[in-house]
Amino acid sequence: MTHEALCGASISQLKKFCEQIREEIFQTVAVRGGHLASNLGVVELTVGLHRVFSFPKDKIVFDVGHQCYTHKLLSGREDRFFTLRQRNGISGFPKRTESKYDSYDTGHAGTSISAALGIAKARDLKGENFQVIALIGDGSLNNGLVYEALNSLKILNTNILIVLNDNGMSISPTVGGTHEVLDEMKGAEVPTEDIALFERYGLQYMGIYNGNDLEEVLPALERAKKALKTGSVLLHVTTRKGQGYAFCEQEPDRTHGISPSKPGKEYSTALGEELVALAKKDKRIVAVTAAMTDALGLRPFFERYPERAFDVGICEEHASVLSAALAAEGMRPYYAIYSTFLQRAFDEVIHDICGQNLPVTFCIDRAGVSGSDGETHQGVFDLSYLSMIPNLTVAIPKNIAEFRLMLRESAHMNGPLAIRYPREGTEGEAGTVDIGKFEVLHSTMSDIVIFAAGERCLALARGVIEKAESEGIGVTLVNARFAKPLDTEMLDARGEKYVITIEDNVLLGGIGEAIAQYLCNSGKHVFSFGFKDCFIPHGSVRELMEEFGPNADEVLRCIRDCHARG
Amino acid sequence: MTHEALCGASISQLKKFCEQIREEIFQTVAVRGGHLASNLGVVELTVGLHRVFSFPKDKIVFDVGHQCYTHKLLSGREDRFFTLRQRNGISGFPKRTESKYDSYDTGHAGTSISAALGIAKARDLKGENFQVIALIGDGSLNNGLVYEALNSLKILNTNILIVLNDNGMSISPTVGGTHEVLDEMKGAEVPTEDIALFERYGLQYMGIYNGNDLEEVLPALERAKKALKTGSVLLHVTTRKGQGYAFCEQEPDRTHGISPSKPGKEYSTALGEELVALAKKDKRIVAVTAAMTDALGLRPFFERYPERAFDVGICEEHASVLSAALAAEGMRPYYAIYSTFLQRAFDEVIHDICGQNLPVTFCIDRAGVSGSDGETHQGVFDLSYLSMIPNLTVAIPKNIAEFRLMLRESAHMNGPLAIRYPREGTEGEAGTVDIGKFEVLHSTMSDIVIFAAGERCLALARGVIEKAESEGIGVTLVNARFAKPLDTEMLDARGEKYVITIEDNVLLGGIGEAIAQYLCNSGKHVFSFGFKDCFIPHGSVRELMEEFGPNADEVLRCIRDCHARG
Repeated sequence: MTHEALCGASISQLKKFCEQIREEIFQTVAVRGGHLASNLGVVELTVGLHRVFSFPKDKIVFDVGHQCYTHKLLSGREDRFFTLRQRNGISGFPKRTESKYDSYDTGHAGTSISAALGIAKARDLKGENFQVIALIGDGSLNNGLVYEALNSLKILNTNILIVLNDNGMSISPTVGGTHEVLDEMKGAEVPTEDIALFERYGLQYMGIYNGNDLEEVLPALERAKKALKTGSVLLHVTTRKGQGYAFCEQEPDRTHGISPSKPGKEYSTALGEELVALAKKDKRIVAVTAAMTDALGLRPFFERYPERAFDVGICEEHASVLSAALAAEGMRPYYAIYSTFLQRAFDEVIHDICGQNLPVTFCIDRAGVSGSDGETHQGVFDLSYLSMIPNLTVAIPKNIAEFRLMLRESAHMNGPLAIRYPREGTEGEAGTVDIGKFEVLHSTMSDIVIFAAGERCLALARGVIEKAESEGIGVTLVNARFAKPLDTEMLDARGEKYVITIEDNVLLGGIGEAIAQYLCNSGKHVFSFGFKDCFIPHGSVRELMEEFGPNADEVLRCIRDCHARG
Repeated sequence: MTHEALCGASISQLKKFCEQIREEIFQTVAVRGGHLASNLGVVELTVGLHRVFSFPKDKIVFDVGHQCYTHKLLSGREDRFFTLRQRNGISGFPKRTESKYDSYDTGHAGTSISAALGIAKARDLKGENFQVIALIGDGSLNNGLVYEALNSLKILNTNILIVLNDNGMSISPTVGGTHEVLDEMKGAEVPTEDIALFERYGLQYMGIYNGNDLEEVLPALERAKKALKTGSVLLHVTTRKGQGYAFCEQEPDRTHGISPSKPGKEYSTALGEELVALAKKDKRIVAVTAAMTDALGLRPFFERYPERAFDVGICEEHASVLSAALAAEGMRPYYAIYSTFLQRAFDEVIHDICGQNLPVTFCIDRAGVSGSDGETHQGVFDLSYLSMIPNLTVAIPKNIAEFRLMLRESAHMNGPLAIRYPREGTEGEAGTVDIGKFEVLHSTMSDIVIFAAGERCLALARGVIEKAESEGIGVTLVNARFAKPLDTEMLDARGEKYVITIEDNVLLGGIGEAIAQYLCNSGKHVFSFGFKDCFIPHGSVRELMEEFGPNADEVLRCIRDCHARG
């Protein structure tokens, strides 16, 4: 439906339209995977925004961005919507390169108000006239970046509309003091002094409206638009995550993200199991997460040891400092987090944890490409940004069994440890783990050795070696399970003339570069394979590895070349 | 004075003692440099804390940490205090390795409440009994990390004392909505509903007390200590930055940090000059800073173009997203920041600026070792954590003249650019700058070439080359002015067998590693010099370069070895 059609439609027509959108989202996500509950919750709200405002002249920034499906369906992308999250298809997040209706790319939490302020300020400086909207959930509202943006509303002296989509959920239920205030507001008959939470920053507070009820939300949006003439506005809307589908409404956390296929064995399951077992023997062990208890496998720990388990909301930085301080006082924190989100706590990893050489163990999930979520969710930088930090040990298990060993080993370490791993893996078997020691997995008389890091790259290497050996070319395989410290003893001792490195991390600053530098005056040849120097879009893990990452054909070609050179 | 002596002293004795401390701080900082105004402001408050609480059993976390001098004088370090900020002397910041009275290391803003919560939670889990205090200024209160910590007070369910040291200043005057609320509170006769700013998080608010008046602050601290039995407390104290020295009180921004010697020519001056000149011709140019207008040289721009100049407070992340959004709407933001503080915005540099390939120019000051502030202020990671990010160009000017050229060039770029430079430099001369192109500075028939990045490393290289040439060894010198993209054309074309790289960045992930990887199959030998893989303490720039960084003697030895090998 075009903007004009939306404006002309009756409420009952709009309601019917919303049901069609809901069905379209449900059907597509069932096949393609994606964010379900969050998108089902904001159908009426988004239809309302598209009726009351004029996109793309007006601009909207979606915080996190996983709730933009209705927006995409309303902005000329309905014909391609079935390609959602497929390679070269529609992204599950806003993308400026995809549509002029997408004003600003998001993926991580808490950026929307800052971004809306920047867009609005640019508008003012250019003397243009349009409205800028930030649509933000109550989960994101916990993030420190939001507070920094609110604090600068008066400094920047511009007008934006913040639509607070309050559904009581992050991926996990929203936690913390701010959330309690929102709950209090929702329970009150009349606006309470809690409104000061927003008014102190110069916002006109308008609320609370049922965001799933068009008859309530449409006039509210109209009033908010009028109020924008005199200053920035916060429109407080409640929605129901998963609205319209009973199983989503009842389990909004489990239906936040849907996978089209049943996942295989996951590293996160092992994390939960091992932490519970370790904690039983060691009272110092605590677990920390930034609003992702289930996805990271921490549920068993949270249930068994609630007093030693901390979900601090979408606050990756605070979770890091909290972990550092717990460790400074003798505890052994395990901070589980997605690779891409740990970027948000980079300074705290350096300044608080590694700077004080504190025994915090980072359990870094979704390392390597994570797939269909695209650019903002790939975990392809961690080996680079972690290996450069003094005092930090960086480990890459070859399988889940080795991951378990590394976790057990971590309890004996006196400094920080990062273990990074993909979502899915195989249990496999593992021998022993010595910190900083590689492991020869397959030894053959050959002039070629592959150092591969992590389960995916080892699988790739094994496939390539099988082919090479069928051609009569022997290749030795090493499990390069520590990006730092490098196993320089093994690097010195190996006699092969040709060294091939494989990692599912960008090449710049990765393990291949470190090995190349170490061997650069040894007379050996080093060929490194990893992810290209670009942002990697959405697609399947297999597609992305082949197109952007270490590629089996290229590695095989390299082996043949080495062999031919002799 | 010991804790016991402090407890036994009369108010007038304490007042006299405070004057002695003030004099000690002033005399030491006058000779050694350091943070003056911030330390003079908290003398009475710190004496009060040491009388009312029992350190080191009780723990205190100093936010930022630059206000800990009185604490150091009161905790057994008075005999060594004259070594302040000298190599192997007393650090200007809290250091756990220096004293058991220092509970937690700080240096960057906003960590104290998170850290205090972690310490308190560990105390509870261990069943111990002591008090935990976070001493935080109103400037730090703007930082998002503080909000994340406040939000989790109720989640963590522990008791801490937050002492808010409200002096109305960051380094620049404090800005923003939160600051306005504090100002309102200070103006009110009775506590206003603004107290809800803190109470909503579960804090008991106590205030407002004159932190420079012992007769007011001592009983307040006693009451706060008692109140801690029933929950966390925020004690709101006003102090006067620079208290006791008229010139400090009048110019708290200029006396925030004191250098013992007059600095030479600074890059920041050139930044201010160039930005004003560029902005005159180009209306798209805007400047962004996180509370450091003067130190970064932006004052002339702020005065000339106030409507295009944004100081958003100590909010490095928000400043990044704001810059990204301004750029997304066609503006050309110049975001000036210290190297070490940009770490705080790492995720936003990736996710918001480079991910959308937006033309934001980072003007990164205090790159390389910054000297006397120590571990938390060295700028030795930036080449590593920036070069790995797709779309970003990373430039290292050889002198101030070349810095000016790079700034002018930046206005024509269509993607993000980072220019990193030390505090002081020489104007010098510059030819032309092509993005991604190195420059041969000194050419000779030789088998040895040095690629040196930035003014300090080029100076080191020149000194070494002079000595080598006096020994009859010719060495070619190249200005490796882009860490990314590398000038692979020149790397391919150069014929020298021995390649030496010099950078004032950690070796891991730096320009030397990238060059080594690029050349690793060329038959050339690559020797890289940079900072060691450790946190670099305080000392003079010269001392730290010699001890931890690229070292002239080692480079000269390397040249002699290469020459001998032929």
